[in-house]
This record gives sequence, structure tokens and C-alpha cells, in this order.
Amino acid sequence: MTSSDKPENASDTAAAEPPSVAARDWATASADPQYRAAVVDLLGALAYGELAAFERLAEDAKLAPTLEDKAELAKMASAEFHHFERLRDRLAEIGEEPTRAMEPFVAAYDGFHKQTAPSDWLEGLVKAYVGDSIASDFYREVAARLDSDSRGLVLAVLDDTGHGGFAVEKVRAAIEADPRVGGRLALWARRLMGEALSQSQRVVADRDALSTMLVGGVADGFDLAEVGKMFSRITEAHTKRMAALGLAA
Amino acid sequence: MTSSDKPENASDTAAAEPPSVAARDWATASADPQYRAAVVDLLGALAYGELAAFERLAEDAKLAPTLEDKAELAKMASAEFHHFERLRDRLAEIGEEPTRAMEPFVAAYDGFHKQTAPSDWLEGLVKAYVGDSIASDFYREVAARLDSDSRGLVLAVLDDTGHGGFAVEKVRAAIEADPRVGGRLALWARRLMGEALSQSQRVVADRDALSTMLVGGVADGFDLAEVGKMFSRITEAHTKRMAALGLAA
Repeated sequence: MTSSDKPENASDTAAAEPPSVAARDWATASADPQYRAAVVDLLGALAYGELAAFERLAEDAKLAPTLEDKAELAKMASAEFHHFERLRDRLAEIGEEPTRAMEPFVAAYDGFHKQTAPSDWLEGLVKAYVGDSIASDFYREVAARLDSDSRGLVLAVLDDTGHGGFAVEKVRAAIEADPRVGGRLALWARRLMGEALSQSQRVVADRDALSTMLVGGVADGFDLAEVGKMFSRITEAHTKRMAALGLAA
Repeated sequence: MTSSDKPENASDTAAAEPPSVAARDWATASADPQYRAAVVDLLGALAYGELAAFERLAEDAKLAPTLEDKAELAKMASAEFHHFERLRDRLAEIGEEPTRAMEPFVAAYDGFHKQTAPSDWLEGLVKAYVGDSIASDFYREVAARLDSDSRGLVLAVLDDTGHGGFAVEKVRAAIEADPRVGGRLALWARRLMGEALSQSQRVVADRDALSTMLVGGVADGFDLAEVGKMFSRITEAHTKRMAALGLAA
């Protein structure tokens, strides 16, 4: 990553074209105000997402049937809080007011969580797992489109996710014990994905610079079809995970 | 601390008496089954206290008027979770099942939190501050009575508390803006302390080995007057803090 301010793919790039964003560092890339706005949006969206996830996981920890289970969900919540801290600190570091960067995304996340309050422990686990997985997929999609410094941060946060294994184990055991549970949780997972997509689409429609960057930095407006493809990839990965979990999606 | 397995006050100790617990390490001190039971109780009580505090602070974060305030309370919650991890890991390290060690204290903490659910943001802040401070006082009281290894852990957890400064600042500002708030919060702080004492007394009555250790390790049963004195010291410190905060206690 330290050498990524030198374009690695110089031979692929036509002489007239500037090196891709991925080959630049933040100092260089952020000279483009549209790119800068997009990254500030992205960090703001991720930061509030982590803070909201902290709050919800902590809340869901109350549904835990045992102290060990409670501690596991609390651990996931605490990990989300530390992601939030890194993202917020990065916003401050690049001279942005973290709260102002987060505010445009509060309604979407709060809307999502309001619509998807788990009614029991298993629903909470499925939500934690689905949320963690979608976040990972999204971080991975977006990392490739970022300057080397922003990419480093996103990958570092991504590296520290994957607490979902605990949830998988518990959900599998519950379905084995009572297969009817699988049907109910499959519906629940579908609802989670539906809400996530509907809130994301609101954000995409509202935040031009961010959406443009997400689909590859086309400077002359964003391509709705490309956004759609990204959503499809994330949805497909979700469907495969649900099937592996024993939930027909 | 590293030299504390050698008795430092050897000249004060009569030749017939064994060195005080504070001068021993865990391996030596835990050979006494009553001492061992007391420390397991203590670690279990502290661990569940931290986990319950995590849960409550995370819950109270929802009352925050701004995103910064929410993040501050989430930070306190996350710090409590890390204390929980250290205490739980220590229990495992000494061969105890953490859940079994915590269980005797669940009812007292849950009772406390159930009786003291804050009805607004300021009550939540006062509770966070009072809780943090009482925990510090108690950790300090108890550290002196522990073997060097257990003391090291308790002091390390103690070192990392003191996130209450944020709460103090906010509560002071609110009282300045509207002095009537002070009267209401003073009543609230008194109720918090009353509930904390009443739950603690239940624990003291139930857990002989722990109570005996807390009052100085009198081997032939615990001295209720000494427990009373410890509670008095903690209450007095609380009263002084409340006065400093502008709350007549």
C-alpha cells in the first residue's frame, strides 16, 4: 500500500489519461472536489452506520438467552464502536466535521433499524450476521475505487469484521432443532435485505457524488445501471450466504 | 507491584503471623480456599457489573441529543465492555467458569438497573457519572485487600475508568442554564445511591466469603460494622462529588 502513490498499472493507462484514483494517495486524489465530497460522504455514511450498529447490537444483547451469548453480542457491538472511532477520527484528520458528514445518512440508517427491530434472539442474530456480511461486501466493493490512504482505512476496518461466525453457529443449531424456525428466519432475512436495499436506494438518489464514485468515478453523472449491478452482486452474495445457513432466500 | 510477593511490612508483622494477603501473589494466596472463593466472587461481581453497565450505557446513548453525545456514551459503554473482557478472561485463567462466577450477582445488578432506568438524557449522564465514580471508589477500597496479581488487574481496570468528566461538564451546563434542573437531579442521584446501597447489602448478606474479604479478611466471620464503614466512606465521597457538581445531596 505504501508504494501505491506510484501508478502500478502505468502501462495500461493511455498517456493522456490521469492515473486512476486507486493509484493516487489522498493528498493527490482529494484535489478533485467531487472526489473529496464523495469520500467525505462515504466516511460519514460508514461512520454513522457503525454507530447505529453499535446501538442496535447492544440493544439486541438484551435478548440473549445466556450470559455468554450476551457477551458475544456486546463484543460485536464494541467492535462496531471502534470502527466508528476510526472513521470519525479520519474525518477529523482530513478537516471535516464528523457530525456534519454523518447527518445526511442518519435518516436512512435509523429508518432501517426502526423497520427491522428483531422480535427475538434468533432474529437479532440473523440481523447481526446479515448486517456484518453486507457491510463486508460493501467495504470490499468500495475499497477498489478509493485512493490508497482511504483504501487502507476501509480495508483495516473490514479486516476487523467477521464476528458473524458466532451467529451462524447458533442459527444453524436452532434450525436443526426445529426446522420450522428456518422458514420464519428466511422471511426475516428477506425483509432485512429488502429494507437495506430500499434505504440504500434513497441514499443513492440523494447523494450524487457518492453514487458516482461507487460506480467507478464516471465524472459526468452516475450510471443507475451500474449502481443496480453493485446492488445485484451484494444481493446475490447475501442469497448464497442465506442458503448456506439453511435459509431459503 | 513486581516485588510485592516479598512482604514489605515484615517488621510490622509478628513472627507467628503469616504475611498479609497484599504481600502475596495469587498462587500463594489462593491456597486458602476462603480467599480463593472471595476473589472468584469479586471477579464475578465486577465482571457482571461491567457487562450490565455496558448494556445500560448503550441503551442510554439512545437518549443523546446529538451525535457527539451519543458517541461519548457509546465510548463509555465500550470501555465497560473491555473491562468485562479482562475480568472474564482472568476468571477463565484461574480455572473458573466465568458465567458461574457472575450468576450470583445478576439479580442485584439487574434489580439496580431496573429500578434506575433514566427518564431523560441528563438522568442518564448523572447515572453514568455516579456509577463510574462509585465503581472507582469500590475498586480502590478493594485493591488494598487483594493479592498482588488480583490487585494488578483491579488497578488496571480502575486506571481506565474516569470517563465521567464528560458527564460532569454537561450536567453543570444544564444546571447553569436552568437551576431547577439541579433539584430534580439531586433527588435522582440520591435515589441512585439508595438503590446501589440496598442492592449491595443484599449481596453482602448473601456472600460470606466476599464480605469477609472486603472488610479485611477476618477469618472468623465478617464484621457488619466494618462493611457499614466501607459503605459510609463510599457514600461520603459520593455526597462530596454531588455537591461539587452543584447537586445538594
